[in-house]
Amino acid sequence: MDKPYVLGLDLGGTNSVLGIVDARGHVIARTSIKTQQYTDINDYVEALYTEAIKIIEPVGGMDVIRGLGAGAPDGNYYTGNIEFAPNLPWKGIVPFAQLLSEKFGVPCTVTNDANAAAMGEMMYGAARGMKNFIMITLGTGVGSGIIIDGKMVYGHDGFAGELGHTKIDHTENARLCGCGQRGCIEAYASATGVARTAREILAKTTKKTVLRDLNPEEITSYDVFKAAEQGDEVAKEIFDYTGNLLGQKLADFVAFSAPEAIVMFGGLTKAGHWIMDPVVKALNDNVMPIWKNKVKVMFSDLKEADAAVLGASALAWE
Amino acid sequence: MDKPYVLGLDLGGTNSVLGIVDARGHVIARTSIKTQQYTDINDYVEALYTEAIKIIEPVGGMDVIRGLGAGAPDGNYYTGNIEFAPNLPWKGIVPFAQLLSEKFGVPCTVTNDANAAAMGEMMYGAARGMKNFIMITLGTGVGSGIIIDGKMVYGHDGFAGELGHTKIDHTENARLCGCGQRGCIEAYASATGVARTAREILAKTTKKTVLRDLNPEEITSYDVFKAAEQGDEVAKEIFDYTGNLLGQKLADFVAFSAPEAIVMFGGLTKAGHWIMDPVVKALNDNVMPIWKNKVKVMFSDLKEADAAVLGASALAWE
Repeated sequence: MDKPYVLGLDLGGTNSVLGIVDARGHVIARTSIKTQQYTDINDYVEALYTEAIKIIEPVGGMDVIRGLGAGAPDGNYYTGNIEFAPNLPWKGIVPFAQLLSEKFGVPCTVTNDANAAAMGEMMYGAARGMKNFIMITLGTGVGSGIIIDGKMVYGHDGFAGELGHTKIDHTENARLCGCGQRGCIEAYASATGVARTAREILAKTTKKTVLRDLNPEEITSYDVFKAAEQGDEVAKEIFDYTGNLLGQKLADFVAFSAPEAIVMFGGLTKAGHWIMDPVVKALNDNVMPIWKNKVKVMFSDLKEADAAVLGASALAWE
Repeated sequence: MDKPYVLGLDLGGTNSVLGIVDARGHVIARTSIKTQQYTDINDYVEALYTEAIKIIEPVGGMDVIRGLGAGAPDGNYYTGNIEFAPNLPWKGIVPFAQLLSEKFGVPCTVTNDANAAAMGEMMYGAARGMKNFIMITLGTGVGSGIIIDGKMVYGHDGFAGELGHTKIDHTENARLCGCGQRGCIEAYASATGVARTAREILAKTTKKTVLRDLNPEEITSYDVFKAAEQGDEVAKEIFDYTGNLLGQKLADFVAFSAPEAIVMFGGLTKAGHWIMDPVVKALNDNVMPIWKNKVKVMFSDLKEADAAVLGASALAWE
């Protein structure tokens, strides 16, 4: 194979990580730039190329690179554009694939970040060999990538798999989500959702808890995890509440595509069994009898730093 | 083409309708038997064959039949079985495709009834030419068939697309569904769900309404439609309530697979704009901005009697 490598780009709100990936899924070199530093997309592409070429030259230059795959918030597989991404410095519609392709001189494919993580999981992670699974990313937001019959679901317009914005609470008092809707699962199972749950539970309970020593606006699922590990009852209550809602919502997803497994990824998974147990219980309490205790629920086994780079790079082999 | 026809079987809880279908999607002949009359599946297959052959002989006998497709409640595409169907006389797992194939001497494929309707809609109905749509059947229950990239979604186990059992109410007081869960949309948007809503609203309101003259257990969406057409405020309220819940749930489905359209089919659709308007409003009020006013919502344009037969027959061309 005269072009043995692909590039995978994980474009995050803070960092953009680019890796050189070989056919066995090894990230043989990586570099990164600060996404927010470039308010002009052309400057971003230029800076990315400048850094990229420093790690590409030592392995043989662009001649050994088959293509580039990018995972980006609000990246659209069909158009190659990044469209109206609220957390990126570039407004409106950015022809991202086209700009990268012109600069790097290789074919470039774009998808959204959660889809990229799902691709990585299917090719190199916990879902290897599975043809039907759903990846849920529990980070700043709640994202998802849906694989059916071995293929990523993009839908009619390329925006399929926005499961973070399905509703767990249909009442008027449901939490407001960043998308403008109320009751989205993202408002409960994301980092900010968990912090909000912590604040709500702390405000209601008189129980002693180490979580009172923290800034309630900044409580992370890892803080809550550490507290739970020490036997903190309030910490456990936070995970039970979060996991119960998430598991109920996963039951809806099972009714949709009957996946073999649901793979969870991102910050909240650091809570281990404290989050897994209530998720699994609520899922099985809320699925139809045919699915009870049949759907695997697992954590990603890819390093968080690698999953999106690997998944994005997978697009470049196609 | 020496085998110009296929057979399509719509196995319903009451009637089993079998049609001979040509390549253009015309049902050139049909016959039916009473499903509940045969408590032994072998008697059912025998009786079906006996009736079928009466309409098959005149067009050239089994030699001109390429195959048989069947849509049945709880029919599984992968296994060809009907599995634990609560509304059919045969208990446990019935190897339906195998029994039919042996009797008729042609390949036989089985799917569930809502999937068959979706296939019919894609090949011959409102969704002709669409590669991404969701069919919602609003009848005794609420069923669904999901098409992604031009293919029916069966999932890991063949049971995908049970959207009637996704939840619209996550509270403890949510309605009990026939599946044993609480809060499923089937408990609200099915025939029995509409009758239940009618009873609840009638119990609460003092408004004059023609619906009080009916047996509340037997109120159908068509009764409510007739009342709404006469300007009955309570009838309108019933459709607004039902449509609002259904539309909210459709918004979840859009976030999953980003379909081009949602096609509604079955008894409730007879209510026309009285149900369509609140569904469309609630859908657009509950989707992310990228999908507002973008997803088509339509009624099936197949005759109800033909959709399942046509859809089931489509399987036999594969």
